[in-house]
Amino acid sequence: MDIREFLKKDQFAASNGIELVDVRKGYARAKLVVEERHLNAGGIVQGGALFTLADLCFAAAVNSHGALTVSLQSNIYYFRSETVGATLYAESRELDLHNKVCTYQIDITNDDGQLIASFTATGFRKTVPLPFEPVE
Amino acid sequence: MDIREFLKKDQFAASNGIELVDVRKGYARAKLVVEERHLNAGGIVQGGALFTLADLCFAAAVNSHGALTVSLQSNIYYFRSETVGATLYAESRELDLHNKVCTYQIDITNDDGQLIASFTATGFRKTVPLPFEPVE
Amino acid sequence: MDIREFLKKDQFAASNGIELVDVRKGYARAKLVVEERHLNAGGIVQGGALFTLADLCFAAAVNSHGALTVSLQSNIYYFRSETVGATLYAESRELDLHNKVCTYQIDITNDDGQLIASFTATGFRKTVPLPFEPVE
Amino acid sequence: MDIREFLKKDQFAASNGIELVDVRKGYARAKLVVEERHLNAGGIVQGGALFTLADLCFAAAVNSHGALTVSLQSNIYYFRSETVGATLYAESRELDLHNKVCTYQIDITNDDGQLIASFTATGFRKTVPLPFEPVE
Repeated sequence: MDIREFLKKDQFAASNGIELVDVRKGYARAKLVVEERHLNAGGIVQGGALFTLADLCFAAAVNSHGALTVSLQSNIYYFRSETVGATLYAESRELDLHNKVCTYQIDITNDDGQLIASFTATGFRKTVPLPFEPVE
Repeated sequence: MDIREFLKKDQFAASNGIELVDVRKGYARAKLVVEERHLNAGGIVQGGALFTLADLCFAAAVNSHGALTVSLQSNIYYFRSETVGATLYAESRELDLHNKVCTYQIDITNDDGQLIASFTATGFRKTVPLPFEPVE
Repeated sequence: MDIREFLKKDQFAASNGIELVDVRKGYARAKLVVEERHLNAGGIVQGGALFTLADLCFAAAVNSHGALTVSLQSNIYYFRSETVGATLYAESRELDLHNKVCTYQIDITNDDGQLIASFTATGFRKTVPLPFEPVE
Repeated sequence: MDIREFLKKDQFAASNGIELVDVRKGYARAKLVVEERHLNAGGIVQGGALFTLADLCFAAAVNSHGALTVSLQSNIYYFRSETVGATLYAESRELDLHNKVCTYQIDITNDDGQLIASFTATGFRKTVPLPFEPVE
Protein backbone atom coordinates (compact mmCIF):
# COMPACT_ATOMS: atom_id res chain seq x y z
CA MET A 1 0.00 0.00 0.00
CA ASP A 2 1.39 3.42 -0.88
CA ILE A 3 0.37 6.72 0.73
CA ARG A 4 -2.30 7.42 -1.93
CA GLU A 5 -4.03 4.12 -1.22
CA PHE A 6 -3.65 4.68 2.52
CA LEU A 7 -5.29 8.11 2.29
CA LYS A 8 -8.19 6.74 0.21
CA LYS A 9 -9.18 5.18 3.53
CA ASP A 10 -9.94 8.71 4.78
CA GLN A 11 -13.66 8.11 4.57
CA PHE A 12 -14.67 11.60 5.70
CA ALA A 13 -12.71 13.21 2.87
CA ALA A 14 -13.73 10.57 0.31
CA SER A 15 -17.44 10.58 1.17
CA ASN A 16 -17.42 14.36 0.80
CA GLY A 17 -15.89 14.24 -2.69
CA ILE A 18 -12.42 15.45 -1.72
CA GLU A 19 -9.68 14.00 -3.88
CA LEU A 20 -5.90 13.89 -3.56
CA VAL A 21 -4.39 14.92 -6.89
CA ASP A 22 -0.66 14.91 -6.12
CA VAL A 23 1.61 13.64 -3.35
CA ARG A 24 5.36 13.94 -3.27
CA LYS A 25 7.85 14.00 -0.41
CA GLY A 26 6.80 16.99 1.73
CA TYR A 27 4.15 18.15 -0.71
CA ALA A 28 0.52 17.46 -1.59
CA ARG A 29 -2.33 18.90 -3.60
CA ALA A 30 -6.03 18.10 -3.18
CA LYS A 31 -9.21 19.13 -4.99
CA LEU A 32 -12.90 19.73 -4.30
CA VAL A 33 -15.59 20.50 -6.86
CA VAL A 34 -18.28 22.37 -4.91
CA GLU A 35 -21.75 20.78 -5.02
CA GLU A 36 -25.02 21.56 -3.21
CA ARG A 37 -24.06 19.18 -0.42
CA HIS A 38 -21.02 21.33 0.47
CA LEU A 39 -23.03 24.49 1.15
CA ASN A 40 -23.97 26.08 4.44
CA ALA A 41 -27.35 27.67 5.22
CA GLY A 42 -26.23 30.91 3.56
CA GLY A 43 -25.67 29.11 0.23
CA ILE A 44 -21.86 29.29 0.23
CA VAL A 45 -19.34 26.53 0.76
CA GLN A 46 -19.28 25.52 4.45
CA GLY A 47 -16.13 26.27 6.44
CA GLY A 48 -15.91 22.61 7.41
CA ALA A 49 -15.72 21.57 3.74
CA LEU A 50 -12.81 23.97 3.16
CA PHE A 51 -11.18 22.77 6.36
CA THR A 52 -11.51 19.11 5.35
CA LEU A 53 -10.02 19.83 1.92
CA ALA A 54 -7.02 21.48 3.59
CA ASP A 55 -6.74 18.79 6.24
CA LEU A 56 -6.51 15.95 3.71
CA CYS A 57 -3.81 17.88 1.85
CA PHE A 58 -1.96 18.39 5.16
CA ALA A 59 -2.25 14.68 6.04
CA ALA A 60 -0.76 13.67 2.68
CA ALA A 61 2.11 16.16 2.87
CA VAL A 62 3.13 15.36 6.44
CA ASN A 63 2.81 11.58 6.21
CA SER A 64 4.86 11.55 3.00
CA HIS A 65 7.98 11.91 5.15
CA GLY A 66 7.63 8.41 6.51
CA ALA A 67 6.54 9.13 10.08
CA LEU A 68 2.92 8.70 11.09
CA THR A 69 1.83 12.25 11.88
CA VAL A 70 -1.19 13.50 13.79
CA SER A 71 -2.47 17.05 13.92
CA LEU A 72 -2.16 18.96 17.20
CA GLN A 73 -4.00 22.07 16.09
CA SER A 74 -5.00 23.98 12.97
CA ASN A 75 -6.25 27.38 12.06
CA ILE A 76 -8.06 28.60 8.99
CA TYR A 77 -8.61 32.13 7.64
CA TYR A 78 -11.43 32.72 5.14
CA PHE A 79 -11.02 35.31 2.39
CA ARG A 80 -13.70 34.71 -0.25
CA SER A 81 -16.84 32.64 -0.47
CA GLU A 82 -17.52 30.19 -3.27
CA THR A 83 -20.58 28.26 -4.29
CA VAL A 84 -21.78 25.38 -6.52
CA GLY A 85 -19.61 24.74 -9.56
CA ALA A 86 -16.36 26.18 -8.23
CA THR A 87 -13.30 23.94 -8.29
CA LEU A 88 -11.08 24.47 -5.27
CA TYR A 89 -7.48 23.36 -4.87
CA ALA A 90 -5.50 22.92 -1.66
CA GLU A 91 -1.72 23.04 -1.96
CA SER A 92 0.78 22.51 0.84
CA ARG A 93 3.90 24.44 1.79
CA GLU A 94 6.28 23.11 4.43
CA LEU A 95 7.13 25.83 6.93
CA ASP A 96 9.11 23.67 9.32
CA LEU A 97 10.10 20.04 9.84
CA HIS A 98 11.72 18.89 13.04
CA ASN A 99 12.22 15.41 14.40
CA LYS A 100 8.96 15.32 16.39
CA VAL A 101 7.03 18.35 15.16
CA CYS A 102 6.26 19.94 11.79
CA THR A 103 4.24 22.90 10.55
CA TYR A 104 2.58 23.18 7.16
CA GLN A 105 0.58 25.91 5.52
CA ILE A 106 -2.13 25.02 3.00
CA ASP A 107 -3.48 27.60 0.56
CA ILE A 108 -6.92 27.05 -0.94
CA THR A 109 -7.38 28.71 -4.33
CA ASN A 110 -10.07 28.65 -7.00
CA ASP A 111 -9.73 28.09 -10.75
CA ASP A 112 -8.79 31.75 -11.22
CA GLY A 113 -5.95 31.40 -8.73
CA GLN A 114 -7.69 33.61 -6.16
CA LEU A 115 -6.90 32.84 -2.53
CA ILE A 116 -10.08 31.49 -0.87
CA ALA A 117 -8.67 30.43 2.50
CA SER A 118 -5.37 29.83 4.26
CA PHE A 119 -4.87 26.95 6.71
CA THR A 120 -1.90 26.24 8.99
CA ALA A 121 -1.40 23.15 11.14
CA THR A 122 1.07 21.68 13.58
CA GLY A 123 1.80 17.97 13.17
CA PHE A 124 3.23 15.63 15.78
CA ARG A 125 5.36 12.86 14.29
CA LYS A 126 4.87 9.53 16.04
CA THR A 127 7.45 6.80 16.33
CA VAL A 128 5.10 3.93 15.41
CA PRO A 129 5.68 1.86 12.26
CA LEU A 130 4.21 3.44 9.12
CA PRO A 131 1.11 1.65 7.78
CA PHE A 132 2.22 2.33 4.17
CA GLU A 133 5.32 2.43 1.97
CA PRO A 134 7.34 5.66 2.29
CA VAL A 135 7.29 8.18 -0.58
CA GLU A 136 10.61 8.22 -2.46
CA MET B 1 -38.65 30.32 9.36
CA ASP B 2 -36.80 30.26 12.67
CA ILE B 3 -33.04 29.81 13.15
CA ARG B 4 -33.35 26.01 13.56
CA GLU B 5 -35.12 25.69 10.22
CA PHE B 6 -32.63 28.09 8.63
CA LEU B 7 -29.68 26.04 9.86
CA LYS B 8 -31.23 22.81 8.58
CA LYS B 9 -30.31 24.28 5.20
CA ASP B 10 -26.65 23.77 6.16
CA GLN B 11 -26.30 20.83 3.80
CA PHE B 12 -22.69 20.06 4.66
CA ALA B 13 -23.52 19.64 8.34
CA ALA B 14 -26.80 17.81 7.65
CA SER B 15 -25.39 15.41 5.05
CA ASN B 16 -22.63 14.50 7.52
CA GLY B 17 -25.09 13.67 10.30
CA ILE B 18 -24.44 16.73 12.46
CA GLU B 19 -27.46 17.87 14.39
CA LEU B 20 -28.31 21.03 16.28
CA VAL B 21 -29.76 20.06 19.66
CA ASP B 22 -30.26 23.44 21.34
CA VAL B 23 -30.25 27.10 20.29
CA ARG B 24 -30.87 30.04 22.56
CA LYS B 25 -29.80 33.68 22.40
CA GLY B 26 -26.00 33.58 22.30
CA TYR B 27 -25.81 29.84 22.89
CA ALA B 28 -25.97 26.59 20.93
CA ARG B 29 -25.29 22.89 21.30
CA ALA B 30 -24.75 20.39 18.49
CA LYS B 31 -24.20 16.63 18.29
CA LEU B 32 -22.44 14.03 16.18
CA VAL B 33 -22.63 10.26 16.55
CA VAL B 34 -19.40 8.97 15.02
CA GLU B 35 -19.86 6.47 12.17
CA GLU B 36 -17.42 4.82 9.72
CA ARG B 37 -17.92 7.69 7.28
CA HIS B 38 -16.47 10.22 9.79
CA LEU B 39 -13.12 8.44 10.11
CA ASN B 40 -9.75 9.35 8.65
CA ALA B 41 -7.25 6.88 7.22
CA GLY B 42 -5.93 6.18 10.73
CA GLY B 43 -9.36 5.00 11.88
CA ILE B 44 -10.16 7.93 14.16
CA VAL B 45 -12.65 10.74 13.67
CA GLN B 46 -11.34 13.15 10.99
CA GLY B 47 -10.40 16.67 12.09
CA GLY B 48 -12.78 18.07 9.48
CA ALA B 49 -15.72 16.24 11.08
CA LEU B 50 -14.88 17.73 14.50
CA PHE B 51 -14.40 21.13 12.89
CA THR B 52 -17.78 20.95 11.11
CA LEU B 53 -19.52 19.95 14.34
CA ALA B 54 -18.02 23.00 16.08
CA ASP B 55 -18.68 25.27 13.12
CA LEU B 56 -22.41 24.48 13.01
CA CYS B 57 -22.60 25.15 16.76
CA PHE B 58 -20.79 28.46 16.24
CA ALA B 59 -23.13 29.43 13.36
CA ALA B 60 -26.18 28.81 15.51
CA ALA B 61 -24.84 30.71 18.52
CA VAL B 62 -23.70 33.78 16.60
CA ASN B 63 -26.69 34.07 14.31
CA SER B 64 -29.07 33.79 17.28
CA HIS B 65 -28.33 37.44 18.06
CA GLY B 66 -30.22 38.62 15.00
CA ALA B 67 -27.33 39.76 12.77
CA LEU B 68 -26.21 37.58 9.87
CA THR B 69 -22.70 36.54 10.92
CA VAL B 70 -19.90 35.07 8.85
CA SER B 71 -16.73 33.50 10.14
CA LEU B 72 -13.43 35.33 9.59
CA GLN B 73 -11.18 32.65 11.02
CA SER B 74 -11.21 29.68 13.36
CA ASN B 75 -8.75 27.53 15.18
CA ILE B 76 -9.10 24.06 16.62
CA TYR B 77 -6.97 22.18 19.16
CA TYR B 78 -7.22 18.39 19.33
CA PHE B 79 -6.86 16.59 22.67
CA ARG B 80 -8.17 13.04 22.28
CA SER B 81 -9.16 10.84 19.39
CA GLU B 82 -12.52 9.11 19.16
CA THR B 83 -13.87 6.45 16.85
CA VAL B 84 -17.08 4.71 15.73
CA GLY B 85 -19.84 4.73 18.32
CA ALA B 86 -18.77 7.80 20.25
CA THR B 87 -21.32 10.57 20.72
CA LEU B 88 -19.72 14.00 20.58
CA TYR B 89 -21.23 17.27 21.74
CA ALA B 90 -20.25 20.80 20.78
CA GLU B 91 -21.25 23.58 23.17
CA SER B 92 -20.69 27.29 22.68
CA ARG B 93 -19.39 29.95 25.07
CA GLU B 94 -19.53 33.62 24.12
CA LEU B 95 -16.18 35.26 24.80
CA ASP B 96 -17.00 38.63 23.28
CA LEU B 97 -19.81 40.38 21.40
CA HIS B 98 -19.28 43.77 19.81
CA ASN B 99 -21.36 45.61 17.25
CA LYS B 100 -19.49 44.23 14.23
CA VAL B 101 -17.34 41.44 15.62
CA CYS B 102 -17.82 38.55 18.03
CA THR B 103 -15.70 35.67 19.36
CA TYR B 104 -17.01 32.32 20.51
CA GLN B 105 -15.31 29.28 21.92
CA ILE B 106 -16.78 25.83 21.28
CA ASP B 107 -15.81 22.85 23.42
CA ILE B 108 -16.24 19.38 22.00
CA THR B 109 -16.76 16.70 24.65
CA ASN B 110 -17.67 13.02 24.62
CA ASP B 111 -20.32 11.17 26.61
CA ASP B 112 -17.96 10.95 29.58
CA GLY B 113 -17.51 14.72 29.57
CA GLN B 114 -13.87 14.46 28.42
CA LEU B 115 -12.62 17.37 26.35
CA ILE B 116 -11.94 16.11 22.80
CA ALA B 117 -11.21 19.40 21.05
CA SER B 118 -11.50 23.15 21.57
CA PHE B 119 -12.48 25.52 18.75
CA THR B 120 -12.47 29.32 18.73
CA ALA B 121 -13.80 31.55 15.95
CA THR B 122 -14.16 35.22 15.11
CA GLY B 123 -17.48 36.23 13.55
CA PHE B 124 -18.20 39.33 11.47
CA ARG B 125 -21.73 40.63 11.91
CA LYS B 126 -23.23 41.90 8.65
CA THR B 127 -25.86 44.60 8.35
CA VAL B 128 -28.04 42.75 5.84
CA PRO B 129 -31.61 41.71 6.73
CA LEU B 130 -31.80 38.41 8.60
CA PRO B 131 -33.19 35.52 6.53
CA PHE B 132 -35.00 34.13 9.60
CA GLU B 133 -36.93 35.23 12.69
CA PRO B 134 -34.71 36.40 15.56
CA VAL B 135 -34.38 34.20 18.66
CA GLU B 136 -36.26 35.68 21.64
CA MET C 1 16.52 27.26 42.43
CA ASP C 2 12.75 26.87 42.31
CA ILE C 3 10.52 27.68 39.31
CA ARG C 4 9.83 31.24 40.55
CA GLU C 5 13.55 32.02 40.67
CA PHE C 6 14.07 30.31 37.31
CA LEU C 7 11.35 32.42 35.67
CA LYS C 8 12.79 35.63 37.14
CA LYS C 9 15.50 35.02 34.55
CA ASP C 10 12.88 35.77 31.85
CA GLN C 11 14.41 39.15 31.14
CA PHE C 12 11.89 40.17 28.51
CA ALA C 13 9.00 39.73 30.93
CA ALA C 14 10.92 41.24 33.88
CA SER C 15 12.22 44.27 31.99
CA ASN C 16 8.66 44.99 30.87
CA GLY C 17 7.28 44.94 34.42
CA ILE C 18 5.48 41.60 34.17
CA GLU C 19 5.36 39.71 37.43
CA LEU C 20 4.50 36.14 38.36
CA VAL C 21 2.11 36.21 41.31
CA ASP C 22 1.29 32.53 41.78
CA VAL C 23 2.64 29.19 40.56
CA ARG C 24 1.32 25.80 41.52
CA LYS C 25 1.43 22.43 39.75
CA GLY C 26 -0.32 23.01 36.40
CA TYR C 27 -1.38 26.56 37.27
CA ALA C 28 0.02 30.09 37.22
CA ARG C 29 -1.07 33.69 37.55
CA ALA C 30 0.82 36.77 36.34
CA LYS C 31 0.25 40.52 36.55
CA LEU C 32 0.96 43.69 34.60
CA VAL C 33 0.25 47.25 35.71
CA VAL C 34 -0.09 49.24 32.47
CA GLU C 35 2.30 52.19 32.14
CA GLU C 36 3.11 54.58 29.26
CA ARG C 37 5.82 52.22 28.05
CA HIS C 38 3.27 49.46 27.36
CA LEU C 39 1.19 51.52 24.93
CA ASN C 40 1.01 51.34 21.16
CA ALA C 41 0.76 54.36 18.84
CA GLY C 42 -3.00 54.49 19.37
CA GLY C 43 -2.54 54.99 23.12
CA ILE C 44 -3.80 51.57 24.21
CA VAL C 45 -1.85 48.62 25.60
CA GLN C 46 0.18 46.99 22.80
CA GLY C 47 -0.79 43.47 21.72
CA GLY C 48 2.78 42.34 22.38
CA ALA C 49 2.53 43.42 26.03
CA LEU C 50 -0.65 41.38 26.50
CA PHE C 51 0.94 38.47 24.67
CA THR C 52 4.06 38.58 26.87
CA LEU C 53 1.93 38.68 30.03
CA ALA C 54 0.08 35.55 28.85
CA ASP C 55 3.26 33.87 27.67
CA LEU C 56 5.01 34.19 31.05
CA CYS C 57 1.91 32.76 32.74
CA PHE C 58 1.92 29.87 30.22
CA ALA C 59 5.65 29.22 30.81
CA ALA C 60 5.12 29.02 34.57
CA ALA C 61 2.10 26.73 34.32
CA VAL C 62 3.62 24.28 31.85
CA ASN C 63 7.07 24.08 33.41
CA SER C 64 5.54 23.46 36.83
CA HIS C 65 4.97 19.84 35.78
CA GLY C 66 8.66 19.10 35.85
CA ALA C 67 9.44 18.82 32.13
CA LEU C 68 11.16 21.66 30.31
CA THR C 69 8.48 22.88 27.92
CA VAL C 70 8.79 25.07 24.85
CA SER C 71 5.97 26.73 22.97
CA LEU C 72 5.14 25.48 19.47
CA GLN C 73 2.50 28.06 18.66
CA SER C 74 0.11 30.47 20.35
CA ASN C 75 -2.92 32.48 19.43
CA ILE C 76 -4.44 35.50 21.08
CA TYR C 77 -7.90 37.08 20.72
CA TYR C 78 -8.40 40.70 21.80
CA PHE C 79 -11.71 41.80 23.31
CA ARG C 80 -11.19 45.17 25.03
CA SER C 81 -8.48 47.78 25.06
CA GLU C 82 -6.90 49.09 28.25
CA THR C 83 -4.60 51.99 28.96
CA VAL C 84 -2.33 53.50 31.62
CA GLY C 85 -3.28 52.61 35.19
CA ALA C 86 -5.11 49.38 34.46
CA THR C 87 -3.98 46.26 36.31
CA LEU C 88 -4.17 43.16 34.16
CA TYR C 89 -4.05 39.55 35.33
CA ALA C 90 -3.25 36.44 33.32
CA GLU C 91 -4.52 33.14 34.67
CA SER C 92 -3.91 29.70 33.22
CA ARG C 93 -6.28 26.79 32.59
CA GLU C 94 -4.92 23.40 31.55
CA LEU C 95 -6.88 22.08 28.56
CA ASP C 96 -4.74 19.03 27.93
CA LEU C 97 -1.58 17.36 29.20
CA HIS C 98 -0.01 14.46 27.34
CA ASN C 99 3.42 12.95 27.66
CA LYS C 100 5.04 15.14 24.98
CA VAL C 101 2.46 17.83 24.30
CA CYS C 102 0.21 20.08 26.36
CA THR C 103 -2.30 22.85 25.68
CA TYR C 104 -3.10 25.72 28.02
CA GLN C 105 -5.52 28.60 27.77
CA ILE C 106 -4.70 31.88 29.48
CA ASP C 107 -7.40 34.47 30.19
CA ILE C 108 -6.37 38.09 30.66
CA THR C 109 -8.77 40.07 32.81
CA ASN C 110 -8.78 43.54 34.34
CA ASP C 111 -9.52 44.61 37.92
CA ASP C 112 -13.26 44.51 37.21
CA GLY C 113 -12.98 40.91 36.04
CA GLN C 114 -13.70 41.84 32.42
CA LEU C 115 -12.13 39.58 29.80
CA ILE C 116 -9.49 41.61 27.91
CA ALA C 117 -7.91 38.88 25.82
CA SER C 118 -7.76 35.10 25.54
CA PHE C 119 -4.54 33.24 24.67
CA THR C 120 -4.05 29.54 23.87
CA ALA C 121 -0.73 27.79 23.35
CA THR C 122 0.64 24.37 22.55
CA GLY C 123 3.68 23.29 24.57
CA PHE C 124 6.20 20.62 23.65
CA ARG C 125 7.67 18.83 26.66
CA LYS C 126 11.35 18.09 26.28
CA THR C 127 13.21 15.21 27.88
CA VAL C 128 16.20 17.25 29.08
CA PRO C 129 16.96 17.63 32.80
CA LEU C 130 14.99 20.42 34.48
CA PRO C 131 17.08 23.48 35.37
CA PHE C 132 15.06 24.00 38.59
CA GLU C 133 13.40 22.04 41.40
CA PRO C 134 10.00 20.57 40.48
CA VAL C 135 6.84 22.11 42.00
CA GLU C 136 5.27 19.86 44.64
CA MET D 1 2.80 63.43 10.72
CA ASP D 2 3.36 60.44 8.43
CA ILE D 3 2.86 56.79 9.37
CA ARG D 4 6.53 56.33 10.39
CA GLU D 5 6.32 59.18 12.89
CA PHE D 6 2.93 57.90 14.09
CA LEU D 7 4.33 54.42 14.72
CA LYS D 8 7.32 55.82 16.62
CA LYS D 9 4.69 56.53 19.27
CA ASP D 10 4.40 52.75 19.74
CA GLN D 11 6.25 52.88 23.04
CA PHE D 12 6.18 49.17 23.70
CA ALA D 13 7.93 48.42 20.40
CA ALA D 14 10.31 51.38 20.72
CA SER D 15 11.29 50.72 24.33
CA ASN D 16 12.09 47.14 23.37
CA GLY D 17 14.40 48.16 20.54
CA ILE D 18 12.09 47.20 17.67
CA GLU D 19 12.50 49.40 14.63
CA LEU D 20 10.44 49.92 11.49
CA VAL D 21 12.77 49.79 8.49
CA ASP D 22 10.35 50.10 5.57
CA VAL D 23 6.71 51.06 5.07
CA ARG D 24 4.91 51.22 1.76
CA LYS D 25 1.24 50.89 0.82
CA GLY D 26 0.23 47.43 2.08
CA TYR D 27 3.76 46.45 3.08
CA ALA D 28 6.15 46.85 6.00
CA ARG D 29 9.44 45.52 7.32
CA ALA D 30 10.69 45.73 10.91
CA LYS D 31 13.88 44.72 12.69
CA LEU D 32 15.10 43.54 16.09
CA VAL D 33 18.68 42.98 17.17
CA VAL D 34 18.48 40.44 19.99
CA GLU D 35 20.02 41.57 23.30
CA GLU D 36 20.06 40.06 26.81
CA ARG D 37 16.86 41.92 27.68
CA HIS D 38 14.92 40.01 24.95
CA LEU D 39 15.67 36.55 26.37
CA ASN D 40 13.44 34.21 28.32
CA ALA D 41 14.53 32.09 31.28
CA GLY D 42 15.86 29.44 28.91
CA GLY D 43 18.27 31.92 27.33
CA ILE D 44 16.53 32.21 23.96
CA VAL D 45 14.54 35.10 22.54
CA GLN D 46 11.17 35.33 24.32
CA GLY D 47 8.02 34.59 22.29
CA GLY D 48 6.63 37.98 23.28
CA ALA D 49 9.62 39.75 21.71
CA LEU D 50 9.07 37.91 18.42
CA PHE D 51 5.35 38.61 18.65
CA THR D 52 5.94 42.33 19.24
CA LEU D 53 8.34 42.51 16.28
CA ALA D 54 5.67 40.95 14.03
CA ASP D 55 2.89 43.05 15.53
CA LEU D 56 4.64 46.35 14.80
CA CYS D 57 5.24 45.19 11.21
CA PHE D 58 1.54 44.25 10.95
CA ALA D 59 0.44 47.64 12.35
CA ALA D 60 2.55 49.49 9.79
CA ALA D 61 1.35 47.40 6.84
CA VAL D 62 -2.35 47.58 7.67
CA ASN D 63 -2.46 51.24 8.65
CA SER D 64 -0.63 52.19 5.44
CA HIS D 65 -3.93 51.79 3.58
CA GLY D 66 -5.39 54.88 5.20
CA ALA D 67 -7.91 53.30 7.59
CA LEU D 68 -7.14 53.06 11.31
CA THR D 69 -6.88 49.31 11.86
CA VAL D 70 -6.97 47.33 15.09
CA SER D 71 -6.06 43.70 15.54
CA LEU D 72 -8.83 41.21 16.31
CA GLN D 73 -6.62 38.17 16.80
CA SER D 74 -3.19 36.85 15.90
CA ASN D 75 -1.38 33.57 15.90
CA ILE D 76 2.30 32.80 15.88
CA TYR D 77 4.19 29.58 15.05
CA TYR D 78 7.76 29.16 16.30
CA PHE D 79 10.32 27.26 14.20
CA ARG D 80 13.79 28.06 15.51
CA SER D 81 15.20 29.73 18.58
CA GLU D 82 17.66 32.60 18.43
CA THR D 83 19.75 34.31 21.05
CA VAL D 84 21.89 37.40 21.73
CA GLY D 85 23.46 38.91 18.64
CA ALA D 86 20.96 37.65 16.08
CA THR D 87 19.31 40.22 13.83
CA LEU D 88 15.69 39.36 13.11
CA TYR D 89 13.50 40.80 10.36
CA ALA D 90 9.72 40.81 10.12
CA GLU D 91 8.23 41.24 6.67
CA SER D 92 4.54 41.48 5.81
CA ARG D 93 2.49 39.79 3.10
CA GLU D 94 -1.11 40.85 2.46
CA LEU D 95 -3.35 37.80 2.26
CA ASP D 96 -6.64 39.66 2.03
CA LEU D 97 -8.01 43.20 2.13
CA HIS D 98 -11.72 43.86 2.35
CA ASN D 99 -13.57 47.03 3.24
CA LYS D 100 -13.77 46.31 6.99
CA VAL D 101 -11.42 43.38 7.51
CA CYS D 102 -7.92 42.42 6.38
CA THR D 103 -5.52 39.54 6.99
CA TYR D 104 -1.74 39.76 6.88
CA GLN D 105 0.98 37.19 7.35
CA ILE D 106 4.32 38.23 8.79
CA ASP D 107 7.41 36.07 8.37
CA ILE D 108 10.26 36.48 10.84
CA THR D 109 13.64 35.50 9.41
CA ASN D 110 17.23 35.77 10.59
CA ASP D 111 20.29 37.13 8.76
CA ASP D 112 20.73 33.80 6.99
CA GLY D 113 17.17 33.98 5.67
CA GLN D 114 16.01 31.09 7.87
CA LEU D 115 12.37 31.18 8.94
CA ILE D 116 12.25 31.76 12.72
CA ALA D 117 8.51 32.27 13.19
CA SER D 118 5.34 32.91 11.20
CA PHE D 119 2.60 35.27 12.43
CA THR D 120 -0.87 35.85 10.98
CA ALA D 121 -3.36 38.47 12.13
CA THR D 122 -6.84 39.71 11.33
CA GLY D 123 -7.28 43.49 11.28
CA PHE D 124 -10.52 45.43 11.67
CA ARG D 125 -10.56 48.68 9.72
CA LYS D 126 -12.27 51.48 11.60
CA THR D 127 -14.08 54.41 10.01
CA VAL D 128 -12.54 57.08 12.25
CA PRO D 129 -10.31 59.81 10.80
CA LEU D 130 -6.69 58.74 10.40
CA PRO D 131 -4.30 60.36 12.88
CA PHE D 132 -1.58 60.60 10.17
CA GLU D 133 -1.10 61.33 6.47
CA PRO D 134 -1.93 58.38 4.19
CA VAL D 135 0.94 56.53 2.45
CA GLU D 136 1.06 57.33 -1.28
